[in-house]
Amino acid sequence: MTPLFLTFEGPEGAGKSTLLARLASRLAARGVAHTVTREPGGTPLGTRVREVLLDPALHIDPLPEFLLYSASRAQLVREVLRPALARGEVVLCDRYADSSLAYQGAGRGLDAGLLAALTREATGGLTPDLTVLLDLDPAVGLARAARRGQPDRLEQADLAFHARVRAGFLALAAREPERFLVLDAAREPHALEEDLWRVLEPRLA
Amino acid sequence: MTPLFLTFEGPEGAGKSTLLARLASRLAARGVAHTVTREPGGTPLGTRVREVLLDPALHIDPLPEFLLYSASRAQLVREVLRPALARGEVVLCDRYADSSLAYQGAGRGLDAGLLAALTREATGGLTPDLTVLLDLDPAVGLARAARRGQPDRLEQADLAFHARVRAGFLALAAREPERFLVLDAAREPHALEEDLWRVLEPRLA
Repeated sequence: MTPLFLTFEGPEGAGKSTLLARLASRLAARGVAHTVTREPGGTPLGTRVREVLLDPALHIDPLPEFLLYSASRAQLVREVLRPALARGEVVLCDRYADSSLAYQGAGRGLDAGLLAALTREATGGLTPDLTVLLDLDPAVGLARAARRGQPDRLEQADLAFHARVRAGFLALAAREPERFLVLDAAREPHALEEDLWRVLEPRLA
Repeated sequence: MTPLFLTFEGPEGAGKSTLLARLASRLAARGVAHTVTREPGGTPLGTRVREVLLDPALHIDPLPEFLLYSASRAQLVREVLRPALARGEVVLCDRYADSSLAYQGAGRGLDAGLLAALTREATGGLTPDLTVLLDLDPAVGLARAARRGQPDRLEQADLAFHARVRAGFLALAAREPERFLVLDAAREPHALEEDLWRVLEPRLA
């Protein structure tokens, strides 16, 4: 089996989890061994860090915020991602390093060189084979997320912040078109799944 | 008033907290405005990160461990240390960046260049005016700490690890003798306090 590392990126409410779950079902039906995980989270440490990051009561400055995401990521790479890829599995990860570049870089204004350098350390250079970017107007995404309940700490940020994050994601995709598959998240989940499958299927050896 | 940034370093059980509390009382009696804080911790974010770092049930690899300490440190610098120094206070901090260099560098073997570069980012270059290193045989320190109850995640590490940490602290002190005051922690608390006060008093303008 060929290991394949897929990440799902985009704003809250874009439908990452839905698309990821649909793909996981399809892989299961085909008998393809796969691991589903997410960031922040995916390990006992990451789950604790996730609780801290999403707590609306906490004030977290941009740099410590980035360091917490990186801590969760570094543990995930070592404890989950590399072992699963070593077993030849397809790994589906809900968010990864591109989220830090978009949210803490484009969104919060941290220096891109610092983010890139520390991300290389945290990931040990592990880069996705394919990154699905679900692109969506921030106003639509936030309205979707709000319908799911109380906004968390990130969802509370203002619309201008989310517009910068969107532009950040699109800039990353433009820089690495061979890695990114950009999908219009306003479309139906079924249509998104078909588009992704068309790209993915030939890669499943 | 002259701001002054003091840090207290050394192994568990060396008496950092006791010496720090004695010094704080002495400053209070003199009417010297001061702030007492600690690492990890010192802020709402840092307190949450501290709970994660000291949880004996969690497996944390060396790099994510360092990133968590750095996250707590970065928030502390921005939220507590710089504001207190800007008010002209004496700041007493139980552990700071030297602990990362000794524990994650000398102890766990992370690259010293990486630690130094990220520490510069996390602290924004804020360096202590005086660092009190309470030096102690690791076996004595661990026995003292064990008497206080259940060992936490760090105290569980073996004696060879703690011997490397001790050597790491002493190497840092040797490299910056003008910043470090190395005290033999096997001595009486009263004697340590007197030695520290002798060095500190002339600096309190």
